[in-house]
Amino acid sequence: MKSYIQEHIDAFIEKNKNKGRLLIKCPDQPGIVSAMSLFLKQNGANIIESNQFTTDHEGGTFFIRMEFECPDLQEKGQRLENQFREIAESFSMDWEIHFLHDVKKTAIFVSKELHCLRELLLEWQSGDLMTDVVVVISNHEECRGIVESFNIPFYYIPANKDIRKEVEAKQLQLLEDYEVDLIVLARYMQILTPEFVAAHKAQIINIHHSFLPAFIGANPHKRAFERGVKLIGATAHYVTNDLDEGPIIEQDIIRVNHRDNVEDLKKKGRSVERSVLARGVKWALEDRIIVYENKTIVL
Amino acid sequence: MKSYIQEHIDAFIEKNKNKGRLLIKCPDQPGIVSAMSLFLKQNGANIIESNQFTTDHEGGTFFIRMEFECPDLQEKGQRLENQFREIAESFSMDWEIHFLHDVKKTAIFVSKELHCLRELLLEWQSGDLMTDVVVVISNHEECRGIVESFNIPFYYIPANKDIRKEVEAKQLQLLEDYEVDLIVLARYMQILTPEFVAAHKAQIINIHHSFLPAFIGANPHKRAFERGVKLIGATAHYVTNDLDEGPIIEQDIIRVNHRDNVEDLKKKGRSVERSVLARGVKWALEDRIIVYENKTIVL
Amino acid sequence: MKSYIQEHIDAFIEKNKNKGRLLIKCPDQPGIVSAMSLFLKQNGANIIESNQFTTDHEGGTFFIRMEFECPDLQEKGQRLENQFREIAESFSMDWEIHFLHDVKKTAIFVSKELHCLRELLLEWQSGDLMTDVVVVISNHEECRGIVESFNIPFYYIPANKDIRKEVEAKQLQLLEDYEVDLIVLARYMQILTPEFVAAHKAQIINIHHSFLPAFIGANPHKRAFERGVKLIGATAHYVTNDLDEGPIIEQDIIRVNHRDNVEDLKKKGRSVERSVLARGVKWALEDRIIVYENKTIVL
Amino acid sequence: MKSYIQEHIDAFIEKNKNKGRLLIKCPDQPGIVSAMSLFLKQNGANIIESNQFTTDHEGGTFFIRMEFECPDLQEKGQRLENQFREIAESFSMDWEIHFLHDVKKTAIFVSKELHCLRELLLEWQSGDLMTDVVVVISNHEECRGIVESFNIPFYYIPANKDIRKEVEAKQLQLLEDYEVDLIVLARYMQILTPEFVAAHKAQIINIHHSFLPAFIGANPHKRAFERGVKLIGATAHYVTNDLDEGPIIEQDIIRVNHRDNVEDLKKKGRSVERSVLARGVKWALEDRIIVYENKTIVL
Repeated sequence: MKSYIQEHIDAFIEKNKNKGRLLIKCPDQPGIVSAMSLFLKQNGANIIESNQFTTDHEGGTFFIRMEFECPDLQEKGQRLENQFREIAESFSMDWEIHFLHDVKKTAIFVSKELHCLRELLLEWQSGDLMTDVVVVISNHEECRGIVESFNIPFYYIPANKDIRKEVEAKQLQLLEDYEVDLIVLARYMQILTPEFVAAHKAQIINIHHSFLPAFIGANPHKRAFERGVKLIGATAHYVTNDLDEGPIIEQDIIRVNHRDNVEDLKKKGRSVERSVLARGVKWALEDRIIVYENKTIVL
Repeated sequence: MKSYIQEHIDAFIEKNKNKGRLLIKCPDQPGIVSAMSLFLKQNGANIIESNQFTTDHEGGTFFIRMEFECPDLQEKGQRLENQFREIAESFSMDWEIHFLHDVKKTAIFVSKELHCLRELLLEWQSGDLMTDVVVVISNHEECRGIVESFNIPFYYIPANKDIRKEVEAKQLQLLEDYEVDLIVLARYMQILTPEFVAAHKAQIINIHHSFLPAFIGANPHKRAFERGVKLIGATAHYVTNDLDEGPIIEQDIIRVNHRDNVEDLKKKGRSVERSVLARGVKWALEDRIIVYENKTIVL
Repeated sequence: MKSYIQEHIDAFIEKNKNKGRLLIKCPDQPGIVSAMSLFLKQNGANIIESNQFTTDHEGGTFFIRMEFECPDLQEKGQRLENQFREIAESFSMDWEIHFLHDVKKTAIFVSKELHCLRELLLEWQSGDLMTDVVVVISNHEECRGIVESFNIPFYYIPANKDIRKEVEAKQLQLLEDYEVDLIVLARYMQILTPEFVAAHKAQIINIHHSFLPAFIGANPHKRAFERGVKLIGATAHYVTNDLDEGPIIEQDIIRVNHRDNVEDLKKKGRSVERSVLARGVKWALEDRIIVYENKTIVL
Repeated sequence: MKSYIQEHIDAFIEKNKNKGRLLIKCPDQPGIVSAMSLFLKQNGANIIESNQFTTDHEGGTFFIRMEFECPDLQEKGQRLENQFREIAESFSMDWEIHFLHDVKKTAIFVSKELHCLRELLLEWQSGDLMTDVVVVISNHEECRGIVESFNIPFYYIPANKDIRKEVEAKQLQLLEDYEVDLIVLARYMQILTPEFVAAHKAQIINIHHSFLPAFIGANPHKRAFERGVKLIGATAHYVTNDLDEGPIIEQDIIRVNHRDNVEDLKKKGRSVERSVLARGVKWALEDRIIVYENKTIVL
């Protein structure tokens, strides 16, 4: 099966090798778009997609995502990046440049509930999540079969709070070995330490099985049942050191009613967790998300 | 315009004068449906719609809503009610019987935000909310024009926490005078005292401008903005003595994004508050709601 | 993996071995529910769930689905069925009785697009589709890997319109061999002949990749793109001899916009096809669907 | 009430008097955004919001909507427009410039079904539809009361196909007298002639009570009932000479089931017609819509 996915990746690179993306956050002032578009024009690049946003209070902050196409980008990328630095400095930009030929490497963490993992692998196999899933790590053995059937390296690292330090050391080593860009917690039911969150460059996306900020913490479906809500939800968010308090990327809900017991809520919840996490991961892979004031701008 | 609405009510009564509804809650045991349907059959009544639900734990509770049609119900209604009492007792039922020719009388409470009031009046005028709106009470003058244009009695009762007692006394007197069956708080921004909630038979439905239990209390849109949620919601619930903790009748959400400031959230929220409240009130008018363990069973 | 699924099935049977379902369609008249509930009571059965519906025109038709629990149903089932025949005749009922310990056998037909197959297998593996998937048949080899990884027998039967007769003969033989109760066309892109549709007892559910009746026939996404719609949909329906004209079981839509090209519509469509088909199949497995006047009553 | 709405309009103008919008369609080539943003910068204008789109086939078409703020725009607007003409010509642009201080004038056409009219007036009264509703025209008297209660001029022009020419002549005269920019057919059940559609500059938005292209033409709810669909919809579209074939602006659906008869579908349909039309009109008023190949780009 691996070869099938590799074909998707190769086809993607071939089709998009001259494409890049600029993600920018800076104080608002006239002339930013003008400078950026002039820069791209001078480098023979054409803007394919451009989305911007400015906060509406005084002294606003400006955000832009520009996707562009530039002949021979694989050769010229580094030079482009260097040249852009000057513009970036003159506008005090926080900025990133991404080249689509550098396909991101993703690690998935999972525990016993496998629906989110399965969804990600299914979308990935269809070519709908453009990434290289380089490793799956779990504190349980349940998913070994499915992961290995995709020819993805699987690591079983038993975890509990007493050995958290050793566990995270092993995990960090794997993240380094596999040069991971993005970590997805696909219902990984262990809490990560601040040290882990701070230790590496990869962004971490978690799926929480409620519409945050309702039902922060454990057992949201049981608490939703007890409160008698008519909707249950799911939230994909970046992980920070505050439990379930990181910037929200995407949320959605599904309708429930008095006939649904806790088990039914869990079942219905799975379908919405799957789609919310898949959308959030997709946007991250497409460099659409800028974090600002503990919120996300999705461009 | 009043005459147009009265036409709707008269046409409804003419069409439904032989219809009734039984709402029942009792300990589950075999034979309940059998006894009820035999009783109706013996009285020449035909079951039009029947919805039931049983909680799934041991020693479950049984709920049923039966809508039936019975020739000459306007004459036979009282006798039917008396006869049913015997069955009700033998099964230890909590029960209600409603006759559709007794159209419910509704009071609407409102403050300055008029969108929910307007929605209810619009639905009512279209014949889609079958009730007699007998009075509108507000602590502001903003809605006098629209209310009086519908020929509905309007009472302006200024309110603040220092004169709560006097205010509620006046309100209770009006509820009694107008023989109100259902109170709808259509964005009425005053807290009701436990005495008020306990003082009369009418049920009270409130609309809260968040998906409870998220953002209980004041300023939910401001807090939603600060948290960076991707959905905002509304909740229709029965009022109890615990603020925003009563049984939830209906909820819905609307998608928002980083472009929406607090004012935008309020605007988007209005459309979902309108439809959620209208649905909740409609179900109450149709005798579809049974309260159980601080939740609602909507049959 | 098979053993894991078999565990789900065994646990389901153990939990539900005393449960049955009655599905009934008959001319409306007083006394039906009364007779049915009396019959169940006399047999020591308790009604767990009951949903009914009556068409609202003169001389209406009555539909009911009753789920009941009866001690020793595995032994008493046949006797119950025989006894009920008398009631059924007196009310001129079209009726079915199902025992939950007889888990339905399902065949899946698929072509090259595998997302619906994957969804069904994923839901099945999670225990959320209670059936025995006994065989997968395809006119392509693409899905062999995934099907066999679930230990499900896979048959590759190349198909084209010139050899339709032979192909269908082989398929019918397999359906008979595997005692199939339900056929699911999970994006099987071949037209079935009237002979095939008539030849066996199994119901056939198809997923069409548009919100019928819009875009009947081939290439719905291309035509949706050309028309510039803002929603695309999917429809699960029973197969009849009229292409895409059978009774609709379930539909849903997903929002699209001007940025989506035909390829994007296909991608977005996949997610809604998956969930619509899974829901439709689930309802069929739960005996919730009655066909009437080329429509479905889902109880 | 008029004064209340006029207050909204005045407040809007005061807040937005320096804002303008550029809407552009032209052959794609490098340098467009650069030229536009340079032009705005040189005129001291700041880009507030910018959305662009390029069709993805060879020799693509480029679309952009830029909202900008420019000091003293009320004085400088005409000059800006003249200067921009040069850029527009060099890129072969189809273009429009709008100044927010020129509030658009809207006419509403309606027949007997008033829910869409009521929704528009309700949203307008809340300040959520920024336009001047200058006239309402109907072929029935039903809405006179509500329209005049808003102090809007109302014209009753009876219509039928035999006198279509005279009717349209009167309507066109009113559109001219009131300097109408946008016509909204809020369930106006008369067919407009090609002459009418061609006769004036105003764009015409219609609401059709189905998810087009399903159920084109008359009685969509009856036909939806007969087909047994599980969703009904509504479509806001620009009017062209082909019935229900104009560019689709917005669509949405609502879930229905076997319990809903034709009358119920109409009721449920109303709520979705209301919101779909209100969104479509809002986007038109915000100059977000560009028509291209009988589709809409909503930026």
